[in-house]
Amino acid sequence: MKLNKFYFTLFALLVAIPGVSQPLVKQNIKETSDKLIKSALANDLGFERLAHLTDYYGPRLSGSEVLEQGIDWVVQEMEKDGFDRIWTQPVTVPHWVRGKESATLDAPIQKELPMASLGGSVGTPEEGITAEVMLVKSFEDLEKRSAEANGKIVLFNVPFTTYGQTVQYRVNGASAAAKHGAVASALASVASYSMQTPHTGTMSYEEGVKKIPHAALTTEDANLIERFIKRGETVTLTLKMEAKNLPDAQSRNVIAEIKGSEFPEEIIVMGGHIDAWDNGHGAMDDGGGCVAAWEALRLIKETGVRPKRTIRVVLWTNEENGLRGANEYLRWVQEDEKSLDNHILAMESDAGVFDPIGFGFSGSDDAYKILVEIGKMLKSADSGEVRKGGGGADIGPLMRNGVPGMGLNVDGSKYFWFHHTAVDTIDKLNIDDFNECVATMAVFAFAVADLDVRLPR
Amino acid sequence: MKLNKFYFTLFALLVAIPGVSQPLVKQNIKETSDKLIKSALANDLGFERLAHLTDYYGPRLSGSEVLEQGIDWVVQEMEKDGFDRIWTQPVTVPHWVRGKESATLDAPIQKELPMASLGGSVGTPEEGITAEVMLVKSFEDLEKRSAEANGKIVLFNVPFTTYGQTVQYRVNGASAAAKHGAVASALASVASYSMQTPHTGTMSYEEGVKKIPHAALTTEDANLIERFIKRGETVTLTLKMEAKNLPDAQSRNVIAEIKGSEFPEEIIVMGGHIDAWDNGHGAMDDGGGCVAAWEALRLIKETGVRPKRTIRVVLWTNEENGLRGANEYLRWVQEDEKSLDNHILAMESDAGVFDPIGFGFSGSDDAYKILVEIGKMLKSADSGEVRKGGGGADIGPLMRNGVPGMGLNVDGSKYFWFHHTAVDTIDKLNIDDFNECVATMAVFAFAVADLDVRLPR
Repeated sequence: MKLNKFYFTLFALLVAIPGVSQPLVKQNIKETSDKLIKSALANDLGFERLAHLTDYYGPRLSGSEVLEQGIDWVVQEMEKDGFDRIWTQPVTVPHWVRGKESATLDAPIQKELPMASLGGSVGTPEEGITAEVMLVKSFEDLEKRSAEANGKIVLFNVPFTTYGQTVQYRVNGASAAAKHGAVASALASVASYSMQTPHTGTMSYEEGVKKIPHAALTTEDANLIERFIKRGETVTLTLKMEAKNLPDAQSRNVIAEIKGSEFPEEIIVMGGHIDAWDNGHGAMDDGGGCVAAWEALRLIKETGVRPKRTIRVVLWTNEENGLRGANEYLRWVQEDEKSLDNHILAMESDAGVFDPIGFGFSGSDDAYKILVEIGKMLKSADSGEVRKGGGGADIGPLMRNGVPGMGLNVDGSKYFWFHHTAVDTIDKLNIDDFNECVATMAVFAFAVADLDVRLPR
Repeated sequence: MKLNKFYFTLFALLVAIPGVSQPLVKQNIKETSDKLIKSALANDLGFERLAHLTDYYGPRLSGSEVLEQGIDWVVQEMEKDGFDRIWTQPVTVPHWVRGKESATLDAPIQKELPMASLGGSVGTPEEGITAEVMLVKSFEDLEKRSAEANGKIVLFNVPFTTYGQTVQYRVNGASAAAKHGAVASALASVASYSMQTPHTGTMSYEEGVKKIPHAALTTEDANLIERFIKRGETVTLTLKMEAKNLPDAQSRNVIAEIKGSEFPEEIIVMGGHIDAWDNGHGAMDDGGGCVAAWEALRLIKETGVRPKRTIRVVLWTNEENGLRGANEYLRWVQEDEKSLDNHILAMESDAGVFDPIGFGFSGSDDAYKILVEIGKMLKSADSGEVRKGGGGADIGPLMRNGVPGMGLNVDGSKYFWFHHTAVDTIDKLNIDDFNECVATMAVFAFAVADLDVRLPR
């Protein structure tokens, strides 16, 4: 008995020291991961599907027919892949439409300016709004010069620093300007580089403040206006915007999964958002994230190895101007599937399917250590780095309810060149980077799903 | 006597060996060059003038009022600089107008495509031209598939290699397509990078061939159409173009000069072209070249050192779609001023005022050697390299008549990102690069003008 107890203790100790006798990431997982990497990097179908989705169903804004047609096409294609279950989840979404829009510089020169009404903005009267431009460099600048704003179009010309900082002027600029009596507001597009490129995106109105139209100009034209004003010119602008908010519409989250062999109730969820802004094709934002997750699942299915846990892909709808898809998924998980505690890990790709670096993870240190081990399998693709901190908008509701989450990190150097513009097309991506993203998502998803241990919270 | 003869021979020998006792580029030239470089690099006025010219008088196409207003402004500013003589030279120029234009993809998806009618193109009927797109990859491809072209819009989707090669489809595409029965033609913009950027530029019709409308789409949309066709789709496009050629109009070359102290009849001419395409602001092409040459002359004037020869700045009109300014200048030089033989050197900047490298020179080896010596004075600015071969469109007529010519070489990596587009604005340039271009032009112009020897042909 003593001897038996000794052996038992030794065994327990070895099991408890990962990487000694009982590695967390076992040989069979490594073999499958190698297969996944190889098949992902040699794969054409994913990029072809991404091109198809974004070429045919480009302006996939919530409430649009194009989005629903795109979703139909995705579901129809997924049926070919032999997943265990594919379904859509109804989501009520906002329905904002852009309509025709124009910005015309009337003085000191006449010029049509490329522009983009911001999602959620009200329109102008049919004849437009013509007013002098008051250019400000910050909210503080506006506050200080409050007396000048009355009857003006306030233009926020704020150089891009980080998205989080600069986007404040897009989201909150209209109400800030309206409080000082502005008749409309505009901003230099939230962009790290521009070739006369207007960037759209969502905005919101503060309760109790007059709703005024809000639009993005190009950074170049905002700077042109600033130069004119510095020369002492009075700058006059006419905005014509048909933008309006229609009654809510119906959309869908798309869900596909492979059931786990041992713990089918435990779920690794990964995905991106299927909706996209209406002025482009949403290739990088976020067709790429959707199709990469979908391809990762397809390639896992193709290995013939069924992981211990369920792997689920969700293509959330309405990330761009409401996050209703992500919120409905959480509600469904909590109230209907009752699977929140069994959501082991949520993974998102919404930073563009550029050359991947790895993942940014938010969760416990114990889980982090395991993910670092998994990342080592991606050495050949140089995409296995796990950084602390990260997530994504669509997995945010899950994460705020305790689910460990991580977002794919990529070379983001051009992300804000293309973000929310007509330039976000498939030609700005390349198949090798995309395939590496697929490999990275597939390896992390499969490994976490197939571990002996449940990823700790 | 013998001793005298010895000394005389020694003296003659020393004079004959440049760089020994009698350097070609004497100390006083070096001192003035150093001053020029210093003053150029510390100068704000030039870049401010370039911003002013291009902000206020952007679409300076031949025949337009904007061009003539821009010329008036330049002349008025030049008056402040105290040059010995400033005048304009009447030039009869073509007058093409773009009017409204649109390209709409009708099938397999509906999409408004950014586009640019090409300079010189005829328009479409008011209702537009709607036809199936025949996409070709080269003139040879079109020849081979001639039978397919009848009634189609031929789209040349040819990847950018060099400007000289790719521009053939812009210049000659319409007649090539019309010969095979096409009803209109289009091409992927001549661009080395694109962010949904249509590039305009001049085109021409072959005599005796039906004139059909010719337009540029973006490279992205040409590739989108190619992907649709590869998927077996029938692609239908509607072009609406109001483009037309009006009767010739009047424009002007702008000329300013400092008279030489010893050989005033000998002329160093430098400049750029004052006209620009109508879809942008012509900052790099070629406001920058114009103002750099003008600033070089102003800074030479400011040194207080009058060079031995005359230095003349010419801002040629109508480079973009006719070269009438350059041809009229040659005619005037030959017939009126009778100064062709005394045109010592012609210098042009029309490659963008980006970080300068030096000059590309076409002329005799003896002249080349002298220019190489002059270039050494620009070591501090790293812009004194003289390469063999080079010139420019506006100095072409002079060069073909025996005048040594050279064109400013710069970092051209982004030139065909912006060329002939709305993106060609002052913000794509920077004051330091611009000032280095000014320094480079000033040093070469001054040194050649002040040499003891006349630059040999």
